[in-house]
Amino acid sequence: MTEPLSTVNSLINTSLLPVTWHNDAIRLLDQRYLPDTVNYHTLNTLEQVVDAIQTMQVRGAPAIGITAAYGVVLAARQRFQESNHNWKTEIQSDLTALAESRPTAVNLNWALNQMRNEICNVEGDPESILLDAAIQIHQSDQAANLAMADFGAELLAGSSAVLTHCNAGALATGGYGTALGVIRRSIDNGLQDIYATETRPWSQGARLTVWELQQDGIPSTLISDLAAGYLMQLGKIDWIVVGADRITANGDTANKIGTYALACLAKQHQVKFMVVAPTSTIDWDINNGQDIPIEQRTVAELLPDCYQNRESLVSAWNPVFDVTPADLIDAVVTEKGVVINPNHENMQQLRYNG
Amino acid sequence: MTEPLSTVNSLINTSLLPVTWHNDAIRLLDQRYLPDTVNYHTLNTLEQVVDAIQTMQVRGAPAIGITAAYGVVLAARQRFQESNHNWKTEIQSDLTALAESRPTAVNLNWALNQMRNEICNVEGDPESILLDAAIQIHQSDQAANLAMADFGAELLAGSSAVLTHCNAGALATGGYGTALGVIRRSIDNGLQDIYATETRPWSQGARLTVWELQQDGIPSTLISDLAAGYLMQLGKIDWIVVGADRITANGDTANKIGTYALACLAKQHQVKFMVVAPTSTIDWDINNGQDIPIEQRTVAELLPDCYQNRESLVSAWNPVFDVTPADLIDAVVTEKGVVINPNHENMQQLRYNG
Repeated sequence: MTEPLSTVNSLINTSLLPVTWHNDAIRLLDQRYLPDTVNYHTLNTLEQVVDAIQTMQVRGAPAIGITAAYGVVLAARQRFQESNHNWKTEIQSDLTALAESRPTAVNLNWALNQMRNEICNVEGDPESILLDAAIQIHQSDQAANLAMADFGAELLAGSSAVLTHCNAGALATGGYGTALGVIRRSIDNGLQDIYATETRPWSQGARLTVWELQQDGIPSTLISDLAAGYLMQLGKIDWIVVGADRITANGDTANKIGTYALACLAKQHQVKFMVVAPTSTIDWDINNGQDIPIEQRTVAELLPDCYQNRESLVSAWNPVFDVTPADLIDAVVTEKGVVINPNHENMQQLRYNG
Repeated sequence: MTEPLSTVNSLINTSLLPVTWHNDAIRLLDQRYLPDTVNYHTLNTLEQVVDAIQTMQVRGAPAIGITAAYGVVLAARQRFQESNHNWKTEIQSDLTALAESRPTAVNLNWALNQMRNEICNVEGDPESILLDAAIQIHQSDQAANLAMADFGAELLAGSSAVLTHCNAGALATGGYGTALGVIRRSIDNGLQDIYATETRPWSQGARLTVWELQQDGIPSTLISDLAAGYLMQLGKIDWIVVGADRITANGDTANKIGTYALACLAKQHQVKFMVVAPTSTIDWDINNGQDIPIEQRTVAELLPDCYQNRESLVSAWNPVFDVTPADLIDAVVTEKGVVINPNHENMQQLRYNG
């Protein structure tokens, strides 16, 4: 059996890995109860993995993809035990269940496609080979984060203050983070002030981002989401740096609800806007953002309990992502390089490079 | 003793009065615990009134002004009992304490100046005369709300959907509301969809606005604050309608944090932007919004408990108001009339009119 990832990869602060493979199972940090409770679950079955993704025990496009890849290992173990002849057919429904567990992030499909190829080629007991493939996905994501951190930090050089939205950190990825990776790397370059939005309704900023930075000894300042406008009016930030859940072939970017509004405000205030995401986030099959499915989550995330009954006249509209058009984005930073002023033409350089 | 206001004024839905004079005391709806708990306090002393304003048991610029006016009645009763010769000197510190209880709203100073004039002229026991003056302030505010509702509804005629921010409703005023007064009145004109922001960090939208509308049988839809951008991108609203805490002589408007960001987004999306406030909200002594003091409230309103200690690297920036420049505002609606495209020149028509 391959060595647990947490000891394999020493580049990354191991206290901040949202998902690892440990003792033949998935070890998952339950992000629903952070920062009050740091609680790890052991997942042994596909059903547990699907549930963990749907209920947002794990969230963040790259972390979801990695968790799903490990989930395929668990599913293959089970299906192979049930039938060593028929398991490649039986596991298809498991792959579908994983693919449908969250609709917006494309890394999930990307990771599942990698695993599908492995399944196709494997002979005999698949667990070890599929686990190697899952770990490869995980470690590649970490390496991508480190590469993006370098690229992004070059762009941020000389900037003293940034705002980030949601959590695009170690907790959202294989470790280190996309947007927060760039921000971590920029500390030594003179970056002084890191502002984080609360990020309603799930409060990823208030609960995860500032917690994650504190774990690394990095100070940060929390603001209410719409205070971002006043922050920019006062000239307090140079860049907004965010992650992505899906980027289309023209550079349009789906990310946490509110990203679009922040990008509009950035444009009006001459604040630069950076999207940081691995190329696994790019969906080359979609030409523009209008075709990205936007997940609507339960109104319970927004509505006080007293309105959650049939007689209530109060409803909620809870899309949890929105799409930022490429023309509001100054730079898309990937592990393969940076695209300045993204559009259909210049995004292509990422497609066949490397 | 003058009759309790709740029975004097039949134009307003009496179940939604945040403050009334009742049984020789102030009866105050504690807005901190809505919508879960509908709890009224009886305030008998100045100290209770100052505390109620500071701790936001009552909030909303007009409601604060009215509460302070009634607070002057309580203070005068106490000071006159202590010394019927010297009370007009002694009450000055009470007026100062009330004036300093919240810094941004100007209606508070306006109401206190009205009461100061009465104090100056009164002879003998002041309670009855000051109470009449406070009730006059209260009823004038209600009448102003009804007049603004008519003016604002004319502007909204033909619109099918609006967004409002914070709570500028009955709960924020003497009754009926400013922005929500316009919205209430527009229901019969074909207004169909009322969206309300949560309004972090105090959640006036989620806790107060949708509750207040439900009390009147009006359906509404709650959104997270930054989802307003996506809402406008989808073309779902025609107007944003908000109240104000202070309007300067040129039409710049201080209102709940986030109002500025919403106004920027409205401009970018060709959504119209309306400010609804009585002329008591206009501070003619200030020429533009840069000179309005912006209240910073405790970081505890934003920070999870675990960060509220000395060792924490996580801080918060919690300005609770911001200033929207007049050029982002399409209409300022007051009880004296409407100013379209407000600026220093055309705001003047409100100054000496009526």
